[in-house]
Amino acid sequence: MAFKNDPPGQWLSTLPPGCLRLSSGYPDPALVPSKEIKLAVTRLLEEEGDLPLHYMGSPRIPQLKKFLQKRMAQRGVELALDELLITSGACQAIDLIARVLLDNEAVVAIESPSYMEALEIFQNYTPHYMTIPIDENGLQTELFADMLKDRKEKGQPLPRLLYTIPTYQNPTGTTLSLERRQHLLELAEQYDFVILEDDAYGELGFQDVPHLLKAMDPTNRVLYVGSLSKVVAPGMRIGWVVADKLLIEPLSWFKKDLDHPFDQATMASFLEVTDFDQHLHALTNVYASKCQTMLLALEKFLPPEVSWFVPKGGYFVWVKVPGVDTSKILSEAFDAGVSFVPGKYFFLEQQEGLQYMRLSFSYATEEEIGKGVELLGQVIGKNIAVAEND
Amino acid sequence: MAFKNDPPGQWLSTLPPGCLRLSSGYPDPALVPSKEIKLAVTRLLEEEGDLPLHYMGSPRIPQLKKFLQKRMAQRGVELALDELLITSGACQAIDLIARVLLDNEAVVAIESPSYMEALEIFQNYTPHYMTIPIDENGLQTELFADMLKDRKEKGQPLPRLLYTIPTYQNPTGTTLSLERRQHLLELAEQYDFVILEDDAYGELGFQDVPHLLKAMDPTNRVLYVGSLSKVVAPGMRIGWVVADKLLIEPLSWFKKDLDHPFDQATMASFLEVTDFDQHLHALTNVYASKCQTMLLALEKFLPPEVSWFVPKGGYFVWVKVPGVDTSKILSEAFDAGVSFVPGKYFFLEQQEGLQYMRLSFSYATEEEIGKGVELLGQVIGKNIAVAEND
Repeated sequence: MAFKNDPPGQWLSTLPPGCLRLSSGYPDPALVPSKEIKLAVTRLLEEEGDLPLHYMGSPRIPQLKKFLQKRMAQRGVELALDELLITSGACQAIDLIARVLLDNEAVVAIESPSYMEALEIFQNYTPHYMTIPIDENGLQTELFADMLKDRKEKGQPLPRLLYTIPTYQNPTGTTLSLERRQHLLELAEQYDFVILEDDAYGELGFQDVPHLLKAMDPTNRVLYVGSLSKVVAPGMRIGWVVADKLLIEPLSWFKKDLDHPFDQATMASFLEVTDFDQHLHALTNVYASKCQTMLLALEKFLPPEVSWFVPKGGYFVWVKVPGVDTSKILSEAFDAGVSFVPGKYFFLEQQEGLQYMRLSFSYATEEEIGKGVELLGQVIGKNIAVAEND
Repeated sequence: MAFKNDPPGQWLSTLPPGCLRLSSGYPDPALVPSKEIKLAVTRLLEEEGDLPLHYMGSPRIPQLKKFLQKRMAQRGVELALDELLITSGACQAIDLIARVLLDNEAVVAIESPSYMEALEIFQNYTPHYMTIPIDENGLQTELFADMLKDRKEKGQPLPRLLYTIPTYQNPTGTTLSLERRQHLLELAEQYDFVILEDDAYGELGFQDVPHLLKAMDPTNRVLYVGSLSKVVAPGMRIGWVVADKLLIEPLSWFKKDLDHPFDQATMASFLEVTDFDQHLHALTNVYASKCQTMLLALEKFLPPEVSWFVPKGGYFVWVKVPGVDTSKILSEAFDAGVSFVPGKYFFLEQQEGLQYMRLSFSYATEEEIGKGVELLGQVIGKNIAVAEND
């Protein structure tokens, strides 16, 4: 059950206070609507009194469900309220799905690299994995098809579940192409597995937002997980699952935190006076600009050997630094005044991620992003030179 | 994994709106400090801005931990901060402990009757139980000793964990005597099990509050679970575990909701301007008076065959109605305009609880309590007469 690798997050505590944080997968502090939430919670408690402070009873909690139902419909997914479960963020949703669908013999297919917390969660349940590498168009479904075929021919166990972040992925920022989305759904049908679509960043497209897997899913094989963490506030812990009601029932059964009325009612109160499309538009404008700043700085300050994927949305740029173990230059970067997340933490086999790093353009200001990438360029430049001389 | 009995809570949805709610284990609405929480959350967001809305960073979250540490010290339990885990209410704490300590071969010892949610939680993990009946002094440790001895002699598996609410128990309102507390700790040592002390009601004593098991525990066999649900507001979902740091670590590992910064920081903001002892004093005065009203009404309106335990604190009175299946008179009570919780839901073997009902004096007003018990007396009176004529 223990994490066999160097556990992620431990280095966080060593992050110097003044550091330019290109490591943080947090929303931009200026975009977290703390003033609006203050008004929302004040209005909530003035209007409802003690209701949102009890186990149940706030009329705004059904309202939150209806908001999510409507939002999903706008994104092409029609659902009944009993096909929806509100969770404490996407992580709890993933954990509940793993708990209900997996056991220690289950094989989980995961795109590689992937979200650190999800890797931790799945490893609490099973030691069996298929990992499918990502390129600039997301999970390589052709390769996945070959791997599945090979497993089937050899009589090896097939995956029960595929975990994917198809849109503006964490950590690579890549988006699964439409053809591959189609292909993935066909594979799920052919090899009888379910797809856990983690859409935490899916509303954060700089231009168009791609079709949800869940909206293209005729056979109901996709379990959709959404989150308001990246588009409103992670500290409110609002995520949700859309799935067949036969699955929602056991998920609820294992959800033993008895819900979060205060968080949920506050969020509903915030949403009822927010033009959500306009809110998203404001966010994506800022993130698109910050992303552009980061990409320009990378062009300017990084040595020519270094490469990256160009994201179309989300929070992250995934950078390859050939010949350098990025976890070994982290303290040097801290000393220079900038932070990043070493790539290895996003791989089940950490060895595979040594040459990568995740940069986030979400949290730092444009100025900090420019300066941070410049400092990082110096640290990387020096270490690439050392690597080449080795 | 499924609940083999009639699932609790289903009847809740049939509760008529105008009903006098002697069923609700909710705090008194007038005692839930919604105005103070409104001020607390306003101050929090004015002073901290976006900090409590991120995954981490609010300085008030460490303050909440220090508050709990200090409070536990006042109650006789000195602890280091790494021996404390804040959870989403007591339920999540119980679930995490079950997840880490149990498997499907583990035997769990449970006092009977017990908290419905806890019964559900444990049944998600194991089908093996020892149930130890409660009398007016709580769990009958003499009987438990005999059962353990018998199991040992027969080579049967011994319990890995005992779950108990030793103080103002849910549903019986009983309190484990000091002698039995001592005896229980000796049994834990002798038969090598851990004690999960659920103290959700422990601060709600009408006069003295008894010693915590955790405070009497020289061999560190007690895992303590506390909650602010019954003394501040359940909708804030603040519970905690006190245990050896070697256990706190895996509990955190399986806690996949990534914490609740907004709830926790709001609670810390509330607590920092609250005289907690005075707050508790105000609560217990009201609950003591409501309890007295309920006891007087029971004396006045219930037939002589009906009996109950006299609680020294908490929320509940446990009533025995000889010869009547209380679940069968629930709809009749609803029609009369009063609700209660049928006793069977608090038993692993629901059959054992047919003649009981849980009444709560916490939620209803004094007037409602008096009237509700009177209505209940009529319903019970009629049904006892029927039972005697059968």
